[in-house]
Amino acid sequence: MKDNSKEEFTTRQHRGAKRRAKTRADLLAAARKVFAKKGYHDTSILDITEAADVGVGTFYLHFRDKDEAFNTLIDEVFHILEEQVIAEVRSHEAITLSVTVQSIFRHAYAQRDLFSIALASGAQVSRTIRVEDTIARGLIRVFEQASRPADLQDYDIPLLACLVTGVIAQGIIWWFDQDEPGPDEMAEKVLALLAHGLPASLFTLT
Amino acid sequence: MKDNSKEEFTTRQHRGAKRRAKTRADLLAAARKVFAKKGYHDTSILDITEAADVGVGTFYLHFRDKDEAFNTLIDEVFHILEEQVIAEVRSHEAITLSVTVQSIFRHAYAQRDLFSIALASGAQVSRTIRVEDTIARGLIRVFEQASRPADLQDYDIPLLACLVTGVIAQGIIWWFDQDEPGPDEMAEKVLALLAHGLPASLFTLT
Repeated sequence: MKDNSKEEFTTRQHRGAKRRAKTRADLLAAARKVFAKKGYHDTSILDITEAADVGVGTFYLHFRDKDEAFNTLIDEVFHILEEQVIAEVRSHEAITLSVTVQSIFRHAYAQRDLFSIALASGAQVSRTIRVEDTIARGLIRVFEQASRPADLQDYDIPLLACLVTGVIAQGIIWWFDQDEPGPDEMAEKVLALLAHGLPASLFTLT
Repeated sequence: MKDNSKEEFTTRQHRGAKRRAKTRADLLAAARKVFAKKGYHDTSILDITEAADVGVGTFYLHFRDKDEAFNTLIDEVFHILEEQVIAEVRSHEAITLSVTVQSIFRHAYAQRDLFSIALASGAQVSRTIRVEDTIARGLIRVFEQASRPADLQDYDIPLLACLVTGVIAQGIIWWFDQDEPGPDEMAEKVLALLAHGLPASLFTLT
């Protein structure tokens, strides 16, 4: 009898945890929709709970305030994005810069609405720098796994990764204001710049 | 008589405006020193007024709060930096990308303490993007004045300026954590990347 009821209790606990996780996911999905529609500042917690079909009190079981819900949303989307890029890049025969840049742009483009809302919300620079650090770490791995390491022996790899991150980040920032060029063309332009550089006439007097 | 007193009044007004401007400049210079020493969060308005040798009330004649004083400081320093770079670049025979990049890095390096404090203060992304827009506008001018415009006819110049801005911005962000390489070496590395690109073996399977 005792064991049975214990088991029942665990099952109930487990169900409760699952339900809480689902409610939290529903709230985040609803928040995303409302933020995209009304913008960060005009969105209220009531808007979010109505869209998620839960009571306002439920919101506060999961998040302190609108800001925390939004930051959680951004962090989760960014985490998923990171996982997607890593999985996609790893599925290739070899990790090249081309594959990495294409994958980053494709996944980031799909989430570009969220980046714009983050900007409008008054997001902090330290948060963006964390995102850039993640891209830079990925690039360091690409550079370290280069098929011909000797080609990079004269480079300061962390600094190089930091600089290249800037090009990729700006490609994403470009989409804050406009949708074109799309991800594949953006990757192409970025890769052309990184592969060949700019015309020599820009650097010296002719 | 009447004219005389009017003149005297204007002179007195003029003196008052000059004194106010001086106090404001003193407060900003003091704020900069205190922020650099104690960090953004640990700096109080009292610290600033003591360093400027004025009463606390005087502070509030010029700024609403610590945040406004800091943002004013950042905006002024950035404005001066912009003017310095423009003047330096214009003093050259021709505006090349090399001259522009070297000048930006040299002036930004001298102010790097302030950039780090700005980051620690929880500065907003929208502010950074404004800075990047200024750099991008400068680069567009460089590209448009290229000695051989035909070299750039296949490029989307605003997008190119946006991407190149990323490399420059990351060079400055690099200095948030470390002082090396200095401005000239940083400019050299950035220009090498922009002129020649990265080794081909990074882009394709070999």
